[in-house]
Amino acid sequence: MSEDNQPTALDLPMVDPLPEATQKYFDICVEKLGMVPNVLKANAFNIEKLNAFTAMYNDLMLADSGLSKLEREMIAVVVSSINSCYYCLVAHGAAVRQLSGDPKLGEMLVMNYRVANVTGKQRAMLDFAVKMTKESAAIEEPDRQLLREVGFSDRDIWDIANVAGFYNMSNRVASATGMWPNDEYHAQFR
Amino acid sequence: MSEDNQPTALDLPMVDPLPEATQKYFDICVEKLGMVPNVLKANAFNIEKLNAFTAMYNDLMLADSGLSKLEREMIAVVVSSINSCYYCLVAHGAAVRQLSGDPKLGEMLVMNYRVANVTGKQRAMLDFAVKMTKESAAIEEPDRQLLREVGFSDRDIWDIANVAGFYNMSNRVASATGMWPNDEYHAQFR
Amino acid sequence: MSEDNQPTALDLPMVDPLPEATQKYFDICVEKLGMVPNVLKANAFNIEKLNAFTAMYNDLMLADSGLSKLEREMIAVVVSSINSCYYCLVAHGAAVRQLSGDPKLGEMLVMNYRVANVTGKQRAMLDFAVKMTKESAAIEEPDRQLLREVGFSDRDIWDIANVAGFYNMSNRVASATGMWPNDEYHAQFR
Amino acid sequence: MSEDNQPTALDLPMVDPLPEATQKYFDICVEKLGMVPNVLKANAFNIEKLNAFTAMYNDLMLADSGLSKLEREMIAVVVSSINSCYYCLVAHGAAVRQLSGDPKLGEMLVMNYRVANVTGKQRAMLDFAVKMTKESAAIEEPDRQLLREVGFSDRDIWDIANVAGFYNMSNRVASATGMWPNDEYHAQFR
Amino acid sequence: MSEDNQPTALDLPMVDPLPEATQKYFDICVEKLGMVPNVLKANAFNIEKLNAFTAMYNDLMLADSGLSKLEREMIAVVVSSINSCYYCLVAHGAAVRQLSGDPKLGEMLVMNYRVANVTGKQRAMLDFAVKMTKESAAIEEPDRQLLREVGFSDRDIWDIANVAGFYNMSNRVASATGMWPNDEYHAQFR
Amino acid sequence: MSEDNQPTALDLPMVDPLPEATQKYFDICVEKLGMVPNVLKANAFNIEKLNAFTAMYNDLMLADSGLSKLEREMIAVVVSSINSCYYCLVAHGAAVRQLSGDPKLGEMLVMNYRVANVTGKQRAMLDFAVKMTKESAAIEEPDRQLLREVGFSDRDIWDIANVAGFYNMSNRVASATGMWPNDEYHAQFR
Repeated sequence: MSEDNQPTALDLPMVDPLPEATQKYFDICVEKLGMVPNVLKANAFNIEKLNAFTAMYNDLMLADSGLSKLEREMIAVVVSSINSCYYCLVAHGAAVRQLSGDPKLGEMLVMNYRVANVTGKQRAMLDFAVKMTKESAAIEEPDRQLLREVGFSDRDIWDIANVAGFYNMSNRVASATGMWPNDEYHAQFR
Repeated sequence: MSEDNQPTALDLPMVDPLPEATQKYFDICVEKLGMVPNVLKANAFNIEKLNAFTAMYNDLMLADSGLSKLEREMIAVVVSSINSCYYCLVAHGAAVRQLSGDPKLGEMLVMNYRVANVTGKQRAMLDFAVKMTKESAAIEEPDRQLLREVGFSDRDIWDIANVAGFYNMSNRVASATGMWPNDEYHAQFR
Repeated sequence: MSEDNQPTALDLPMVDPLPEATQKYFDICVEKLGMVPNVLKANAFNIEKLNAFTAMYNDLMLADSGLSKLEREMIAVVVSSINSCYYCLVAHGAAVRQLSGDPKLGEMLVMNYRVANVTGKQRAMLDFAVKMTKESAAIEEPDRQLLREVGFSDRDIWDIANVAGFYNMSNRVASATGMWPNDEYHAQFR
Repeated sequence: MSEDNQPTALDLPMVDPLPEATQKYFDICVEKLGMVPNVLKANAFNIEKLNAFTAMYNDLMLADSGLSKLEREMIAVVVSSINSCYYCLVAHGAAVRQLSGDPKLGEMLVMNYRVANVTGKQRAMLDFAVKMTKESAAIEEPDRQLLREVGFSDRDIWDIANVAGFYNMSNRVASATGMWPNDEYHAQFR
Repeated sequence: MSEDNQPTALDLPMVDPLPEATQKYFDICVEKLGMVPNVLKANAFNIEKLNAFTAMYNDLMLADSGLSKLEREMIAVVVSSINSCYYCLVAHGAAVRQLSGDPKLGEMLVMNYRVANVTGKQRAMLDFAVKMTKESAAIEEPDRQLLREVGFSDRDIWDIANVAGFYNMSNRVASATGMWPNDEYHAQFR
Repeated sequence: MSEDNQPTALDLPMVDPLPEATQKYFDICVEKLGMVPNVLKANAFNIEKLNAFTAMYNDLMLADSGLSKLEREMIAVVVSSINSCYYCLVAHGAAVRQLSGDPKLGEMLVMNYRVANVTGKQRAMLDFAVKMTKESAAIEEPDRQLLREVGFSDRDIWDIANVAGFYNMSNRVASATGMWPNDEYHAQFR
């Protein structure tokens, strides 16, 4: 897998020049994150696809939710560890380190989430995400009920399911297209 | 799992009344499909989430692509069969029956895609989608190269990866939330 | 896999002419079912094998038992769904639709039996059949005891075990020989 | 699991007295084998079931075939090793030791068939039986073609498939009912 | 896999002549066991490796422990059965037969340890060893607590873990190098 | 899992005072590594066990071999990633970062070794170690031959097998005993 300037192993150049709104969005990324994440560059060969992706991503990961942003990133990393997705583990591992201020937490979620020192409620959330990842067809009402019993609302369950679902999509797209994480992530927040 | 009026096992009532644009969209669904698919009703407790879902769905399944609409539905069914997702097998099985005019093709893809009488190119596409579903981390350049050799462009590979990825998300969300398919699908296009 | 006149992918022509008793049996099939099921044609290259198969089949599926004929067909479909056997899912899916008068029940058992609206006793029976299919060596006394607790007799347990066992044989023989289901099944009892 | 006089964990006493023909058959077993195999006693609560079982067993394992009796027993043991079936490994392990005169061959097939010193043709046969056992739905024409290329006829393929299928049934019935092998097998032909 | 004079499939001749201490150790083996176990010959191309192996082996299997020697051999066989290691099943199956005086116990542990008539405490020990073998990362405090509750001390848990770990190493080395068990084991203690 | 002063979840205090030779060894660890690795403290409740462990470890990882020390650490990390062993991924991930001077290489081997930019020979070595970890019983002569063809000697194959085997032991012991990595590793060599 190459580490050249391409965000994936597919030859799909970005629209050039980018539409003004997209360019502005990318400029904000550079300003705030120090880079344009490669997943955005990878989608930028087609602006409708890029917009659909960012709309769903932003709604899931940044909009109001009973789950904190860190908890959503925790789900992202744990799902990605089950799927062994290099791109997502690098990018979202950095996010967990940043949002938690706890580099070891990021490592634990990447390596074996069972050793992580999380709350019982968070553990139930992660176990549900893992079951969704490994054998979603086996999820039944008692699995949802267990989440309710530790304090999650039905809306929270929707959010857990959709964040876990989203990374089951992203992990597979990243691996299938040979998506490459930006170098900047590796040393961040260690 | 109940078959009452709820689209999922979660208590998340639709926004009431629906915004005008959403109501219009649902009216078109009834006109064209004879129903509002439950996945849309399930998302309609939050219009931003509904819009993000439909934008991505429409782009993937209906926008221009080197893959025909039938081929995209074939991927949907085969991925859903690996994940044993009742909702998606019912809804997209019906779509395969409709678009192909071949009820048996729908059954084969639901039951064991290997017996389906598809082209070699389509078989390679489905095998790639299955590998993405079962062990995405094992996909490497030779897997993509094999798709190129049977005639897929890099853009086609992107589309295969994203359609297969999308149903790995949808299958899991449907199973995790107890999503229930509309009754209308069962008897359609037999 | 061909859809020509052959019941399997093997070149094993039926005894010609068939012995009188066999011909009579096949005539009754046509009269009652509108066809001779391909599994019978497949065995008819050797009348001893055909007779051994039909004797066991008839005893298991049609003789007296604490399990109803529908329940035995439910086991057939669920075991076949775990084994992804196209022949048996088509043939016995039709049987479930016929005996239950509920086309959706057939679909559910084909796609993900956990969503089917069956009694708790039937669910225990199907879970036992699934465990037998996936990891029979892990079955121990508590698994049998659980069946007794929901109301099955030891004779019923024998029948559950033997029906589930039989389809674990038939599924594998059908897939291994490329057995092809009769076209007539697909549209039946929808 | 008890080692009392019962052939299984189910309370299903033999018909008493046995019909004359059955008693005669059991007497022959004692004369030839030194025992009545417990699988026969287990079925003897119902003579129709016993007869159906013995008819199929005798046809598969003893009737004319392109496969030798030893080769059929080799399939029995290898399938049973994948399914970890104690009853069948004990009974058919003894049969391999007897028919081959090679105690080590029996052990190898029980423990890891890949180390056994069999012919290339036999290895292909065993690999096919193992694929049938582990993932029968993945068997396609090239798998059958491979058997033809090493010298098996279509009739031989039928026999391989049916013997392997039969032990996938028997293994599961034995484990599900807690069937216990006769003590006599253990020390035989060491 | 050859059955010639080589202990493995690798061309790694023993140091010749062996150092005096090693020769003495091998002489004792012949005297006590009637052979030099092939695992020792396999390591004897490098005396440091041989000594490291025997030091660890002797400490684990022969030194003082809350586990009896038979119990340690029981773990060896059960772990080896999960890993289908021919070498270790032959060698340690013989050891179980010898130490227990119960040939059937050896067979049961080789074939399906769940049918073996062991104490509840031993069953818990074997279940822990199996979980370590199949999915060690899923072991958490409740698994250890369960061992304590049936009477194992923390030191015993260390010993169970290290014996089970050791055979997960040995099984893999034996299979990876094509290690061949001494013929003498097969007929011993039947 | 606690992060207190204990190296594992078992209550097994170190011999106190340590024998002079052990204390010296631990002092050297502190001097060279800045810490005594917890795996050594964990074994130090029994000096024979500690010595057996360190003798085998030092021979495998530090003695002369056709494999470089980095290559041996690469095997350690990849095996540990398959087994999801937190302790070993932390400790040996740091070692890969140190020996390679390439922090990203460490991450790749932890997350999905297939994306790592290693030589073809190293990839063959890692694939062999992974096959040993996942299904060692399926390794046969062609697997060894493939290693020879990319340039490994039979002695190298022994070393690959034994290093991969060793971490299949260590991973399981670490997970089974709740072994906790020293904090110092996390920030090293980033």
